Amino acid sequence: MAENGAKRIRLGMVGGGTGAFIGYVHRVASRIDGDYDLVAGALSSRPDVAQESGRNLGLAEDRIYTSYEQMARAEAARPDGIEAVSIVTPNHMHYGPAKAFLEAGIHVICDKPITSTLEDARKLAEIKPKNGAKFLLTHNYTGYPLIRQAKELVASGALGNIRVVQAEYPQDWLTEATSDDNKQASWRTDPARSGAGGAIGDIGTHAYNLARFVTGLKTDAVSADLTSFVAGRQLDDNVHIMLRFEGGAKGMLWASQVAVGCENGLQLRIYGDKGGLEWRQDNPNYMWFTEFGKPKQLLTRGGAISGNAASTMNVRIPSGHPEGYLEAFATLYSQFAAVIRGDGAAYEGLLPTLADGVEGMQFIVASVQSSQNDGKWTKLSEV
Amino acid sequence: MAENGAKRIRLGMVGGGTGAFIGYVHRVASRIDGDYDLVAGALSSRPDVAQESGRNLGLAEDRIYTSYEQMARAEAARPDGIEAVSIVTPNHMHYGPAKAFLEAGIHVICDKPITSTLEDARKLAEIKPKNGAKFLLTHNYTGYPLIRQAKELVASGALGNIRVVQAEYPQDWLTEATSDDNKQASWRTDPARSGAGGAIGDIGTHAYNLARFVTGLKTDAVSADLTSFVAGRQLDDNVHIMLRFEGGAKGMLWASQVAVGCENGLQLRIYGDKGGLEWRQDNPNYMWFTEFGKPKQLLTRGGAISGNAASTMNVRIPSGHPEGYLEAFATLYSQFAAVIRGDGAAYEGLLPTLADGVEGMQFIVASVQSSQNDGKWTKLSEV
Amino acid sequence: MAENGAKRIRLGMVGGGTGAFIGYVHRVASRIDGDYDLVAGALSSRPDVAQESGRNLGLAEDRIYTSYEQMARAEAARPDGIEAVSIVTPNHMHYGPAKAFLEAGIHVICDKPITSTLEDARKLAEIKPKNGAKFLLTHNYTGYPLIRQAKELVASGALGNIRVVQAEYPQDWLTEATSDDNKQASWRTDPARSGAGGAIGDIGTHAYNLARFVTGLKTDAVSADLTSFVAGRQLDDNVHIMLRFEGGAKGMLWASQVAVGCENGLQLRIYGDKGGLEWRQDNPNYMWFTEFGKPKQLLTRGGAISGNAASTMNVRIPSGHPEGYLEAFATLYSQFAAVIRGDGAAYEGLLPTLADGVEGMQFIVASVQSSQNDGKWTKLSEV
Amino acid sequence: MAENGAKRIRLGMVGGGTGAFIGYVHRVASRIDGDYDLVAGALSSRPDVAQESGRNLGLAEDRIYTSYEQMARAEAARPDGIEAVSIVTPNHMHYGPAKAFLEAGIHVICDKPITSTLEDARKLAEIKPKNGAKFLLTHNYTGYPLIRQAKELVASGALGNIRVVQAEYPQDWLTEATSDDNKQASWRTDPARSGAGGAIGDIGTHAYNLARFVTGLKTDAVSADLTSFVAGRQLDDNVHIMLRFEGGAKGMLWASQVAVGCENGLQLRIYGDKGGLEWRQDNPNYMWFTEFGKPKQLLTRGGAISGNAASTMNVRIPSGHPEGYLEAFATLYSQFAAVIRGDGAAYEGLLPTLADGVEGMQFIVASVQSSQNDGKWTKLSEV
Repeated sequence: MAENGAKRIRLGMVGGGTGAFIGYVHRVASRIDGDYDLVAGALSSRPDVAQESGRNLGLAEDRIYTSYEQMARAEAARPDGIEAVSIVTPNHMHYGPAKAFLEAGIHVICDKPITSTLEDARKLAEIKPKNGAKFLLTHNYTGYPLIRQAKELVASGALGNIRVVQAEYPQDWLTEATSDDNKQASWRTDPARSGAGGAIGDIGTHAYNLARFVTGLKTDAVSADLTSFVAGRQLDDNVHIMLRFEGGAKGMLWASQVAVGCENGLQLRIYGDKGGLEWRQDNPNYMWFTEFGKPKQLLTRGGAISGNAASTMNVRIPSGHPEGYLEAFATLYSQFAAVIRGDGAAYEGLLPTLADGVEGMQFIVASVQSSQNDGKWTKLSEV
Repeated sequence: MAENGAKRIRLGMVGGGTGAFIGYVHRVASRIDGDYDLVAGALSSRPDVAQESGRNLGLAEDRIYTSYEQMARAEAARPDGIEAVSIVTPNHMHYGPAKAFLEAGIHVICDKPITSTLEDARKLAEIKPKNGAKFLLTHNYTGYPLIRQAKELVASGALGNIRVVQAEYPQDWLTEATSDDNKQASWRTDPARSGAGGAIGDIGTHAYNLARFVTGLKTDAVSADLTSFVAGRQLDDNVHIMLRFEGGAKGMLWASQVAVGCENGLQLRIYGDKGGLEWRQDNPNYMWFTEFGKPKQLLTRGGAISGNAASTMNVRIPSGHPEGYLEAFATLYSQFAAVIRGDGAAYEGLLPTLADGVEGMQFIVASVQSSQNDGKWTKLSEV
Repeated sequence: MAENGAKRIRLGMVGGGTGAFIGYVHRVASRIDGDYDLVAGALSSRPDVAQESGRNLGLAEDRIYTSYEQMARAEAARPDGIEAVSIVTPNHMHYGPAKAFLEAGIHVICDKPITSTLEDARKLAEIKPKNGAKFLLTHNYTGYPLIRQAKELVASGALGNIRVVQAEYPQDWLTEATSDDNKQASWRTDPARSGAGGAIGDIGTHAYNLARFVTGLKTDAVSADLTSFVAGRQLDDNVHIMLRFEGGAKGMLWASQVAVGCENGLQLRIYGDKGGLEWRQDNPNYMWFTEFGKPKQLLTRGGAISGNAASTMNVRIPSGHPEGYLEAFATLYSQFAAVIRGDGAAYEGLLPTLADGVEGMQFIVASVQSSQNDGKWTKLSEV
Repeated sequence: MAENGAKRIRLGMVGGGTGAFIGYVHRVASRIDGDYDLVAGALSSRPDVAQESGRNLGLAEDRIYTSYEQMARAEAARPDGIEAVSIVTPNHMHYGPAKAFLEAGIHVICDKPITSTLEDARKLAEIKPKNGAKFLLTHNYTGYPLIRQAKELVASGALGNIRVVQAEYPQDWLTEATSDDNKQASWRTDPARSGAGGAIGDIGTHAYNLARFVTGLKTDAVSADLTSFVAGRQLDDNVHIMLRFEGGAKGMLWASQVAVGCENGLQLRIYGDKGGLEWRQDNPNYMWFTEFGKPKQLLTRGGAISGNAASTMNVRIPSGHPEGYLEAFATLYSQFAAVIRGDGAAYEGLLPTLADGVEGMQFIVASVQSSQNDGKWTKLSEV
């Protein structure tokens, strides 16, 4: 990975000022493999925070912006302007910047979910990016090596025909009502900033995306029961969904922000007529693989019988030495760097796209509608 | 437990001839604590098998029967006749014997589900047993000490108000079509002998019962998607259900006989507004308990902070030395022995009853109906 | 297992009165498979306890004894006298009863370690039992199905030449000084009743025996560092030993009664030049098996690729339903029953013998001597 | 961490050319928190490899060196010369570069073990660095947040007086003889390049250092049994050591490169008279903590009840999102950056020093001597 003599890509960032969580994660991810230099930013809508944050990150004074429109214009005009931008604002502030930069010919790396409404997502998908600017949606869990290996195993037929998919993502950090001071909590529980989904948008989409990424199955319809357990909370904090995939596979998805004792318990279990796979994000360097009638095998990241994806492209250090969340995130960044440089053929089909973003929004909207209709099975194609 | 000088209870058995699985389990369970002596049996409807099985078990020749009616009559008439009987036949053969023995004044220990139809279950519940004969339904997983402790913890308020209940029971032994030679498989996949439910009746009811036992919550309604994945199979082999409990708690239940790599993966996870519990049957001597905002604690069977139930009544050997499935089963037997002897006050509310059996049938029927109605939420009280 | 029409063996017990731990365990083990009936006992040296205990266990008045000598004589003289006896007294009280019953022609089941001194063990080994009476030493962990399977795997060459053996048995129950009231603790920490070893005799011998049982390797020498951490304790409560086996394999053994957080953490790990095995007693239904260069496999009790021993002879219920400590113990009882009936050929080499007992004492004595000589390598053959 | 507006430190590297493992790790570690820019290197003793490697890393042509002496001179003379250097050569090539750069006033980050001989280590410790140049020894496992928290817990008295320390580091990658082509294996099994220790120097020192780091106990003496299992191998590939600490604590250390099924199974278990701790490197975001008589608690990185070190200084992302080996390594780099900038008071006592390096060599030498003397207890102070 990286370290191959290629020039670093000049990167900008929208959002991610002091105190932000995911902006920091994106910056670390951009540094790990050495493919990017952060040189510009509209890090906050508050000018003072934007200034201070930019200075702390070592940005030149004239490249600390307070509006993304201004940043897009100015950077597009500079000979040394940014080549790519990371959008790490709350959901409702994805669409505007993404449009502005794509139309300015600047590659976009955008946090998930892609937008706060399905309409915005569809409009974004119809934009004609200038100069073929590319788009990456950071469904970061797809960067885990064993998730890539799981995808390979399914595609290879090692599991046979997929029958059952169990995806879940329980957390407990919103078990109690949160004060407005909690920056991470407040926008995620606010429909104006998050969109129509709470837990389903924040973490349910991750679990859903992961299931889709690994299995390759298309979703037919969902039957959902979304709940808001905490008094006064406007958005769902617990998500129960049954899934029907095209071709007959069935699934369940559970996401929760009120499951006491769960931190980031993202888990994916897939069962076909020949084999099964089980993986957990909180110990991501291991995955169970069982061929029917044989003992369970514990696959390790980059260990014995790794497929091509896992052993070659996505692993930094030997098995037994754990890699984690930041490395998986960095893998998206460095492989997108290869795509930007025109050298990304190997990553075809591995990096989440605009289309994945639109489908994620369909999943959210269909689930919310189903829940409002007392669990009526709702087709993704009809929302 | 036992070893207290009380006389052994004279026990009979219906079903459980050579080659049967659950009959053997019942016999071991009856022996572990020394509370029963098996002295009579109608072990098979095939006379030769009944004879051979009875002899192998050391039954006297005149107490090896080939019909349960005959056995009920004869034993009730003997001064040394059986005091209790274990019914371990396929589901459709529970009702007849249960009725016969209860009406003969003989205590009944009956495998689950209670019957093959809800009608039979209700008729059974209306029988007036002679001499106050008692009934035990062997939902054996309720005998695990940590399940008892879980029930105590919930009742004590340690979890606060229950919000989310995730129950599952995946297996993989019916992943492929089975031959008629497979005695265990053939009746379980035959509607005439199992009833309307396949996986839901065989293992789904266990998961359901366990959730109900521990939480004490009443079920309002279910929304189900039952599937038969194996070509030609008449009953469901995969069960996806969403649950609504009275008072607002929500749940999911997954049971499967086609989840490759799962043996008997019964798991129960319960989350309230103050705490959470997580338990797995395949390593039943441990249970996670988390108080919100504190580290997860690993409770052990009979270990530190055990409640009364777990530490005193239901544990045979010190923590760290595992007890298993057979001991949990035996706990039902020995505590029912205390009930029979009139000394069972301590077990009030802990031993599964006729009413639990009827409700289990309601759960099966409501789930089957919901699935037939495309997942319509179906109230248990309306089936 | 059992249930085969064979008559129950008439069993007596020495020790095991009210409040005793291991006597209770032996009784449960004798009942599980239905091969024994307890009919006589010298359950305590205190007549009142002996009487009360015997009555609670349903023994006939004339078969409740207060001396083992009297019991041996009386039972040997009865036509319906006991055929076998379980000796479950503290270590220093093993030799006398074992000798008495063997010389009376009554089979002996004896708890471990075999005696409190090596001299006693050797004298016992030289006794000529009357009528070929047999001897079983209850190194109960050897009864776990996966330990039997581990032995088979090693013997089959699946691990290649064994190089490294890591055995350990940490507990924490003696972390603090114990009062005299603690019956289990007091004799185990008293040299007069335990012998020269504390933790090494109580649990170190179990770990040692297990390593020997599975690998079949002969021990050449030990280098030991025994410690007594608790002030005033006369015997070791922590055991560090390095092992050299004949043929060049090396090992380490750790046993402790002061390892806070460990309950009965018996663990065995074996590495050869082709493969490795890892097993823990606190979750005994699973074992790791790795062939060099391949993924780790999780073997389950009675599951896929079980060898003959594990799948056929030693398993009661299907994989995924856990069996535990009592079942493993019961396996020794029921297989010894087969030996007693002259039908035990299949268990040749599986049931711990007098010779194993003598060697266990050599291990204790050599370790104590080595520790006294500042860790000098000490050959077992020279003590 | 980082991102605080401080200028990046100009970094050089000795060793770490194409194909090297640990050099790559150091580079990633230097990038993660953004505290360093790699600008110079003597990446290989082979000029062609040095050139190609330097170019791939984007070094300016005139800062690609083929000798470390030349690099030290040239960089010390440049106004924009490197401020720090990473030494990532085989062990025997640590001393020379470390001396050269320290004497040139350039901070040194050196891989472990510090040198290949104790003599070199002692000479290095006596050097007077120019301008107060600092030294960091990359015992990288000390950078894991929970290891820092373990150290805090021990220091706080939460475990009471430490009694028993069990450290181990099993691997299996040298189970078979390796070809000379295996660059990683060949120097590690060559006394001329590794020094007198094989597994003990490569991984045993890590386990030892970790035990010392967390407990703060001083080692009195070791009794060792080192083995080379693979025919023709000149250095030990399996290490069995008993440890005696000052004050009476005892320990065991096992390191192996032939333990089939173990990848990087570094494990540390510590038991005091009040509590116990258990941690494994292959799932480093979790640690068991038990207070005597209470249930085991699973501490998580940055989770509930984290101490100051773990929760504030050493954690990048929320608990439940795993960090790994590279982040722990990066923590040493970024905290050393603070030290270089004169802002490192908070890391006092946390970053491995020259003195730790010398003691590590004493541990190796004492163990080798003990093993040569048939396990004689050997004091570290006497080698």
